[in-house]
Amino acid sequence: MDIATLIGLLFGFGIITGSIVMGGGAMAFVHIPSMCIVIGGMLCSVLIHFSMNQFLSIFSIIKKTLLVKIMSPSEIIQQMVNFAAVSRRDGALALEEQIRKVDNKFIEKGLQMLVDGQEEDVVREMMSLEIMYIQERHGLSKKILEFMGASAPAFGMIGTLIGLVQMLQNLSDPAGLGKGMAVALITTFYGAFLANVAFIPLAGKLGIYSKAEILSMEMTVEGICSISKGDNPTVVREKMQSFISPNKREDIKATI
Amino acid sequence: MDIATLIGLLFGFGIITGSIVMGGGAMAFVHIPSMCIVIGGMLCSVLIHFSMNQFLSIFSIIKKTLLVKIMSPSEIIQQMVNFAAVSRRDGALALEEQIRKVDNKFIEKGLQMLVDGQEEDVVREMMSLEIMYIQERHGLSKKILEFMGASAPAFGMIGTLIGLVQMLQNLSDPAGLGKGMAVALITTFYGAFLANVAFIPLAGKLGIYSKAEILSMEMTVEGICSISKGDNPTVVREKMQSFISPNKREDIKATI
Amino acid sequence: MDIATLIGLLFGFGIITGSIVMGGGAMAFVHIPSMCIVIGGMLCSVLIHFSMNQFLSIFSIIKKTLLVKIMSPSEIIQQMVNFAAVSRRDGALALEEQIRKVDNKFIEKGLQMLVDGQEEDVVREMMSLEIMYIQERHGLSKKILEFMGASAPAFGMIGTLIGLVQMLQNLSDPAGLGKGMAVALITTFYGAFLANVAFIPLAGKLGIYSKAEILSMEMTVEGICSISKGDNPTVVREKMQSFISPNKREDIKATI
Amino acid sequence: MDIATLIGLLFGFGIITGSIVMGGGAMAFVHIPSMCIVIGGMLCSVLIHFSMNQFLSIFSIIKKTLLVKIMSPSEIIQQMVNFAAVSRRDGALALEEQIRKVDNKFIEKGLQMLVDGQEEDVVREMMSLEIMYIQERHGLSKKILEFMGASAPAFGMIGTLIGLVQMLQNLSDPAGLGKGMAVALITTFYGAFLANVAFIPLAGKLGIYSKAEILSMEMTVEGICSISKGDNPTVVREKMQSFISPNKREDIKATI
Amino acid sequence: MDIATLIGLLFGFGIITGSIVMGGGAMAFVHIPSMCIVIGGMLCSVLIHFSMNQFLSIFSIIKKTLLVKIMSPSEIIQQMVNFAAVSRRDGALALEEQIRKVDNKFIEKGLQMLVDGQEEDVVREMMSLEIMYIQERHGLSKKILEFMGASAPAFGMIGTLIGLVQMLQNLSDPAGLGKGMAVALITTFYGAFLANVAFIPLAGKLGIYSKAEILSMEMTVEGICSISKGDNPTVVREKMQSFISPNKREDIKATI
Repeated sequence: MDIATLIGLLFGFGIITGSIVMGGGAMAFVHIPSMCIVIGGMLCSVLIHFSMNQFLSIFSIIKKTLLVKIMSPSEIIQQMVNFAAVSRRDGALALEEQIRKVDNKFIEKGLQMLVDGQEEDVVREMMSLEIMYIQERHGLSKKILEFMGASAPAFGMIGTLIGLVQMLQNLSDPAGLGKGMAVALITTFYGAFLANVAFIPLAGKLGIYSKAEILSMEMTVEGICSISKGDNPTVVREKMQSFISPNKREDIKATI
Repeated sequence: MDIATLIGLLFGFGIITGSIVMGGGAMAFVHIPSMCIVIGGMLCSVLIHFSMNQFLSIFSIIKKTLLVKIMSPSEIIQQMVNFAAVSRRDGALALEEQIRKVDNKFIEKGLQMLVDGQEEDVVREMMSLEIMYIQERHGLSKKILEFMGASAPAFGMIGTLIGLVQMLQNLSDPAGLGKGMAVALITTFYGAFLANVAFIPLAGKLGIYSKAEILSMEMTVEGICSISKGDNPTVVREKMQSFISPNKREDIKATI
Repeated sequence: MDIATLIGLLFGFGIITGSIVMGGGAMAFVHIPSMCIVIGGMLCSVLIHFSMNQFLSIFSIIKKTLLVKIMSPSEIIQQMVNFAAVSRRDGALALEEQIRKVDNKFIEKGLQMLVDGQEEDVVREMMSLEIMYIQERHGLSKKILEFMGASAPAFGMIGTLIGLVQMLQNLSDPAGLGKGMAVALITTFYGAFLANVAFIPLAGKLGIYSKAEILSMEMTVEGICSISKGDNPTVVREKMQSFISPNKREDIKATI
Repeated sequence: MDIATLIGLLFGFGIITGSIVMGGGAMAFVHIPSMCIVIGGMLCSVLIHFSMNQFLSIFSIIKKTLLVKIMSPSEIIQQMVNFAAVSRRDGALALEEQIRKVDNKFIEKGLQMLVDGQEEDVVREMMSLEIMYIQERHGLSKKILEFMGASAPAFGMIGTLIGLVQMLQNLSDPAGLGKGMAVALITTFYGAFLANVAFIPLAGKLGIYSKAEILSMEMTVEGICSISKGDNPTVVREKMQSFISPNKREDIKATI
Repeated sequence: MDIATLIGLLFGFGIITGSIVMGGGAMAFVHIPSMCIVIGGMLCSVLIHFSMNQFLSIFSIIKKTLLVKIMSPSEIIQQMVNFAAVSRRDGALALEEQIRKVDNKFIEKGLQMLVDGQEEDVVREMMSLEIMYIQERHGLSKKILEFMGASAPAFGMIGTLIGLVQMLQNLSDPAGLGKGMAVALITTFYGAFLANVAFIPLAGKLGIYSKAEILSMEMTVEGICSISKGDNPTVVREKMQSFISPNKREDIKATI
């Protein structure tokens, strides 16, 4: 789980809630019809903009961004170096039993191809193609979150305009003036809050996450291809390390 | 029909209308002169920006975005695989009677070229050229909708400025103050509503739609060219599947 | 004359004026000092941004955008096909008397080159160079109009700030408060009106117009070069039609 | 001196000042602390953004933009044609005495290279490199002016916020309310005025100026290289004219 | 230390503080809960957007931007010319004792490679790779600062909305109205102040700083490679000077 995202969301929510509670009158900030306008309006505009499938995918995307752990470069290198050692010692077929121990689908697929004795070219092409489609899916998800970050404040403003018009028609009741104005402003608050605490930074995180995952996948492809050529563990490690900064390179050895 | 667009538009309209009705004084939100300023002003600026033909095309574009169904990749592959089977069994001329069963003009055109015995090069060039022009037309339509999405709020603001100036000249009548201000804000509301519920997300949908249609057309070109070379149904399928993610590839067989 | 631009400008002006007159107090919207700030300030910033020549060119540009008619692709093809027929029947020199009948300077220039017996390479280079310089001039004009569209609202806001400061110093006179505020808002109205009804859509139109004119010029170059090589009318037509969508291609024949 | 910039600045300043004086209470618009916030804050943010040298260069840049005259293409061609005539008549060394008559450093440098008998390749490389570095310097200056155009309104808003907070704490004194509000708005006025009358259009002018100067320098390089190859004046003129639109080419002859 | 950044920050802070103190009621501008919303909210959104490591790196980045001195081109050339003289006089191994005198890690690394007798190709590749990773790190840091510059005003607005809603619910107490409004505006002030005095210009400075450091590193690579080929000090100087404007080139000689 990405701890930074969770801390940011919890503290961001906490700070805003805290300052509301401290200021008193916290109940004024809970207004169901205003929430309906901002969240409902935003979801509708997402539905109009994107297709049904793309719309439904955003929930799994947000969950994934929060929960999935990306393997660090050195973890991937360690695994690949081990596989290379196994492959050279016991042959490619011996990798079959390693597949069961791996919980990363992309690495599994690569190992399966090694076991099946696929040519290096085929392996590289198939895996690169998959990376390309994943990159596209990440890009689309980022676009949806960014659109939500632009749409929520817009519906916040629409809600405030509705509230203002309603309030202005009852100017004769000065007592309700303040309350009406407060209710009108709540939608703008909801829109700004959702966009700046959730959607905009989550879209950014998805970009960071996507870049890291693509890097780990590209290193995996390099490792699998290197193993399929029968390279020894040291060569596999060196080929994979060309993807990371010289300062971060470690002397990783097979542990199997 | 694209169900997501319809749901989004209906619910978006419903949520806003609902929250207006619930707040009371719904009649204040129907103000014909304000509608004239926002919608009329926006249409005029579109007329100034674009040419008459381009202006008239937006209605058919919006209709098409809402109503036309794009064939899914597997439907297209299924059709092409069938045509390949027919072509190999009974010769290219036998495709003539298939044309009648197809309700997609682009596929019809391709089949007709096969029946006419056109060379693969000519087929590919003619069809690719058509894709290019369709892409350009989609791009222009997207630009018109985006311009409308920027123009509507601008005319909303112009209307509000007019209303404010008129209201401020009659400050001596405090009773009318609130009503005047409410009327002034209505144009801003109309502009924001039209832009965020309709034009901006519809422009986005057109982009999504265009991308999907272009993909289906490119797959069609690949399929028709493959058939024209006399490829068997399996080869046709494989060539067409190179356009879609490995995860979505299915084992489609000829059903004719 | 481009009818859409004219209709858009007239109706746009009409709608805004109409809604002002209907609301009463139309005279409040005519305020000469406010006009001076918005229009004068905008012209000054254009003068500072661009050079004197570029500044003076904007008037002829706007006139041209409104008045000049661009020949449609089929008109140009028709003309060129006729010239090709004349050239093949009576020789290139016979084109001299056609020049008089043409009222398009670019086509005239091309014909004159044909009459002068210039090589195809020279013709193409000279005409392409001219297209390049025209394209650059159009681009600059678009930039000036876009800058005006950004500058007018900015000076509108400056005028409103001036009006507000002046009004706020005389708060002791509550009767004048509304009028002062109204006058202050007028400059913002002028700026928004000029930008959204005139400058921004006119800049867009210039882009559309430029693209159409460049296309017609490129078709002309293709036609002239084809004639200079002695191609027959059918070949000339086909070469020129490669610039337009297959759906719009017509079977144009020489009418001379 | 670029007359358009001067006229624009004078009239722009005049129009705003005039409308302030006509509205009465002009002294309210002179508020030294507000000027300090806007101009001081902007200069500080420029200092933080750029290095000390870059900061100090902006004054010479603005002066140069206002005062330096760029030679017109025909003037440069005329000079180069003359130099070519001298060089062919009396040899390259005879150009030495022409250097004294030239007041353009870049042309001087080129002539000196001719006198020193440098190879064409060396001349072109050295002069092109200098053009590149000048282009980079112009680009940086434009960026500084654009940053000032964005920073001034931001500090105007900061000043207004400070003024509003101070005013709101003394609401008990209704007499001072208007004056306090007026003072608060003055900083926003200063920021908008400086950005729209000075920085933003001056940044634009610098771009126009830079493009014209780079063109004149490139023509100079072409001319000097042509002379170094011993071309006759007519050839020199033709090579230099390839940089300008066919319509503007004149039949320039040596006048020496 | 970059003196301009320090002066800018001190004076920027001083001008704003000064104008607050002069206006009276300075204590109203110190409001801890408002600071928590703006700074806390902004830090949370940075945490959500970026990963934990990236978040923690911003403090060292800001410190580095303020404190680290970049060697000027002539200093680097002077050093490299000296090393070249030593290397030619006493051999590459003699550079070992020079390493101790250098306090720039990148130059140290290059010298160590020379001492180790690495091939020119290897040296260039290793050092270029490091430059690439440093460039990427700088780019990321600039992005974080820019995001903070956009996020701070957004949380300022959120805080103001909270304050407004709270104030509007207590309209019955007219005495507290002004104070409540003042407190509400403080968060907007904090956000605008932090963004415009600190984050936005600091992000700009980081870009300027990065460009200068990358240039000095590229010159170092050129120098080290030149020394590794056994070039004499004059050749080393000339190769390195190709990175700087002809006007700034000096006649630097070895001082060892």
